[in-house]
This record gives sequence, C-alpha cells and structure tokens, in this order.
Amino acid sequence: MKRVLVTGATGFIGRHTLPHLAAAGFEVHPIGSRDADLLNGQARQDLLARVKPSHLLHLAWHVPPGKYWTSLKNVRWLQASMDLIIAFANQGGKRIVSAGTCAEYSWEGDGLCREEETPIAPASLYGTSKDALRRMQESLARQLGFSQAWGRIFFPYGPYEPEGRLVPSVIRSILAGEPAKCSHGRQIRDFIYVDDAARAFAILVDSAYEGPINIGTGIPVTIAEVAQTAARLAGRPDLLQLGALPTRSGEPDRLLADVTRLAEIGFHPNFNIEQGLRKTGDWTRFSPKDNT
Amino acid sequence: MKRVLVTGATGFIGRHTLPHLAAAGFEVHPIGSRDADLLNGQARQDLLARVKPSHLLHLAWHVPPGKYWTSLKNVRWLQASMDLIIAFANQGGKRIVSAGTCAEYSWEGDGLCREEETPIAPASLYGTSKDALRRMQESLARQLGFSQAWGRIFFPYGPYEPEGRLVPSVIRSILAGEPAKCSHGRQIRDFIYVDDAARAFAILVDSAYEGPINIGTGIPVTIAEVAQTAARLAGRPDLLQLGALPTRSGEPDRLLADVTRLAEIGFHPNFNIEQGLRKTGDWTRFSPKDNT
Repeated sequence: MKRVLVTGATGFIGRHTLPHLAAAGFEVHPIGSRDADLLNGQARQDLLARVKPSHLLHLAWHVPPGKYWTSLKNVRWLQASMDLIIAFANQGGKRIVSAGTCAEYSWEGDGLCREEETPIAPASLYGTSKDALRRMQESLARQLGFSQAWGRIFFPYGPYEPEGRLVPSVIRSILAGEPAKCSHGRQIRDFIYVDDAARAFAILVDSAYEGPINIGTGIPVTIAEVAQTAARLAGRPDLLQLGALPTRSGEPDRLLADVTRLAEIGFHPNFNIEQGLRKTGDWTRFSPKDNT
Repeated sequence: MKRVLVTGATGFIGRHTLPHLAAAGFEVHPIGSRDADLLNGQARQDLLARVKPSHLLHLAWHVPPGKYWTSLKNVRWLQASMDLIIAFANQGGKRIVSAGTCAEYSWEGDGLCREEETPIAPASLYGTSKDALRRMQESLARQLGFSQAWGRIFFPYGPYEPEGRLVPSVIRSILAGEPAKCSHGRQIRDFIYVDDAARAFAILVDSAYEGPINIGTGIPVTIAEVAQTAARLAGRPDLLQLGALPTRSGEPDRLLADVTRLAEIGFHPNFNIEQGLRKTGDWTRFSPKDNT
C-alpha cells in the first residue's frame, strides 16, 4: 500500500498534486494549514500516528509573496521540517520528497542551473533555510535509511497562485480594466505551469530518484513575453505597462533549469506558456479574488 | 562594556576560555548545562533577558565520545542554536562566535583544510548539523546585522577532555598500570592543546573577523607520536600497544588545519605537543576519574 502524506496540500502547488498522486495509485492524505499545525510537535506526532504514511510529500512552508525571502518563519519551518522528517522515518516511512527552490543556487553564473555543478549559494534567508533542510534531509536519510529527493522549484504559475505575483497581478489588473505595471521584463526565467510542476512532484514521489532535481521546463521565456501573453489572452494588451516598475535588486538576467534529470524520470511538460496562461486566464475569470 | 555569554562553559573547551575572555576585558557570563537548559525556549529567553550580552561564544552541543556522530540530538542542538542566535540578536547582541568542526570538510582530498577552498562535505549527521548551523548563522547575520565567526575545531586535547578519547584513555590506562590499546596510529592529525584552542576562541570573540576559521596549530603529528609521548610522560611507554585496535572506518590519513587566517588574527600556539601532554599528564595524576 502506497500512502502519501502531502503537507501544504491546500497551497499553490500542493492542491494540484493530489489528482496526480491518486492517479499514480497512492492513497492520498492531504494536510493543509487548517488540518494540522505542522509547527506544533504534538500535532505532527498525532498526524503521523494517525496516517502512518509510507511516503511524504513535504511542500508546506511560509511563502507569502514578497515577505518570505527574509521572514524569520523560515527558521521555524526549517526546525519543524527536520522534526517532521525524523518523526516520519521513525514511524516507518520509506520515502520523502520535499520542495526546494531555485533560490538555493548561486545566481552569479550563466543562469543555467545544473543540480550537481551549479554552486549552491543562496542569497536569502529563505534559500539558506531550504538549503539547510536539504542537507539535513540527505544526512538523516543516510543515517535512518529512508529514500529521499529534493525538488528545486523554478517559476510555477497557474490557478491559485498567490496574488501579488506576476501572472495573477497582470491578469487581475487587466480583467479589472486597470493598467498592469511591470518591470522591463527582459529577465529570462523558467516558467512552468503549476499542473505540470505538480505532476513532476507526483512522478518524483513515485520514483526511486535520490537527491536534488530541478522542477522546471528548461524552456527560456522572458518575463515580458509572459506578461504580454497574459495581457493579450485577457483581452487588453494595451493595458500592459512594461518598464513602469523598477527591477528588484539582485534579480539575475537568466534563471533556467537543466531538466536532464527530470526528463530521465519520465517528466515532460504538457503545457507551453500560451496554453498554461490561457487556462490561468480562464480560471481567473471565474474565481473570486482572495481565493488563495 | 563587552559582556560575553559563554555556552558550554563547563565543557572541555568552554571552561578554558573563561580566563582568556576575562583577560581580554570581557565581563564573562559562563553558562553550563546545569545553569540553563539551552534546549528550552523559555530558559534561553530568560537567560538573555537577564544577561543582555553584547557577545555570544556558543560552544554548547551534544558531544559524548563515540555517540555524537550520529545522535539525533544534533538536530535539537541545531534547532536550539538557531533560536539562541535570533534571540541574542533581537536583544541587541553584536557578535557571535560559534564552534564548528573539521568534520564539516570533505575528508577526501589532500587533508589540508583551507576555509574557503576545501569542499564542505560532512559525512556525519554531526558534521552536517554543524554545517547547517554555520550557513544559517551567516544568513541571519546578514539579515539581522550582527557580526559572526565560526571556529572549526580540529583535535584539542588536555585537562577535562572527555574520557574515552585518545589522550585521556592512554594516560589513564598507563597511570593505572594497564595496557593502553590504540590503532596503528599512522594517521596525521592537527592536535591543539585545549588552552591554546580556548585562547584562540577568546581572540576570535574579541576580533572583527567574519566567517569560518580553523582552530588548530597547522603542525602535523601522528596519532602514534601523541600516544607514545603521552605514554613516555606517564612513565610506562612499554604499556602502549599500537595496532591493538582496528582503525575506525572513514578515518582519513591526514587532517590538518591551514592556520593562515588564525595567525592573521594574532593567534600562535603556546604549547607544543610535548609541553601540552606533560601538562595533561600532570593534571590527570591529581584529578579523580569521571571529572568531566
């Protein structure tokens, strides 16, 4: 029996993983922030004793847009995640997949992030906390004898993305008939439709892959292209104002996932940027604000 | 006013730091495991509110000989240490020096450990936990604005070293007229007399040095030389049995500190191995067993 506990299951990526995990034959136990407070030790113990999962997909973290880079809650999530991993292993759990981030990589190089070659040099407390957890997860896996992988997420977009981030802010502004202000948008990024990212995680959980792996498409797209496509699909490309906002300091010109490993475990994206943004636009039209 | 809180102050290295810190003009607040349970959040808060230190020398950890490499208490100390660092900074603390370990380095190379060049690749949960704390301490320092250094300790020996480790076990066996069994002892190590290591930490606390720094002498000595010298000084070199024990797996042939940086902050060892072992032998003769 494959039984997976999914933390962050009401979050942006987590909620999209559930059907893919079920389709892969898992008995799925989704845990959202309202189901159990994972920062509470007793709640974690009770949860694991009740579910007795064989697999853990650990996506929960503190990620409010803009604030999560420096929030000290990263430290609490690092602490709680280590305890969760140990408790999971102690109750007989066999495999853990956790959410990492492209912010673990150094952003100083050519921008093509390779799992083993690109230096690990997170510039933020968020990236450092994730990186510390990855190192501890690997060490605990060696010692306690469980299997583990670490999915470094690039730039997911799609339904339920937290407002305030690029795609939802462009689409919602335009649907409201208001100007959509962006930076110049020449930065190249690895955008991945959230359902693809979620499916990649489901494949990863069901695989025997060990270690870090990029969750992206490997396809370079500029932020301007994403914004322009979103604006066009929302019907008012004239409302898009590229260059109206400053570029955030420390933003690299290019951030792209090497997806060799992800292809090797059998993942290929189903949605290109046009298809993904079309679905996102359709969803946004029929969903209320503050749905996250 | 320079006011330093010393954790692990009744431990092997910690107790030796106190006179050096006082001599450097610090108001010294030593905290041993019986003074405050640093794993307890309220105890940490109370301690910091009471002492209000400007400096923190964080040496406390879980290090019983033989067991600490794999103990899950490393995780609890990592967690508690992050909280201690944040609480220290939040109450106005200016500078933190914490104890790292040569076990953070990869032991696969030439054995000469250079702070910035030697790959960081701890093989144990102990080394990984220390490394994770170092990364978090550096990130928290950048964000919260305190100064920090990280002293990677090599092979300290001397009074109050926990029994079961090389030097005390050789000396005590021989003083008891019993055979002192060792491995072949051809491994080269960087032994440092504990009073020297403690003085190095005091200099480091009082400096503005940022980042990791090796705490060693840079002088290569074989384990056999150390055992032979200790046995000779204890009066019965014939009781030493080199090769009677197997070498622990994973033991590198050579582990040596590059001490360029340590010399740059003004530290040079006062004791060579003969002098250090003589003092250790004299101390052992007049101290009861289980003094740690």
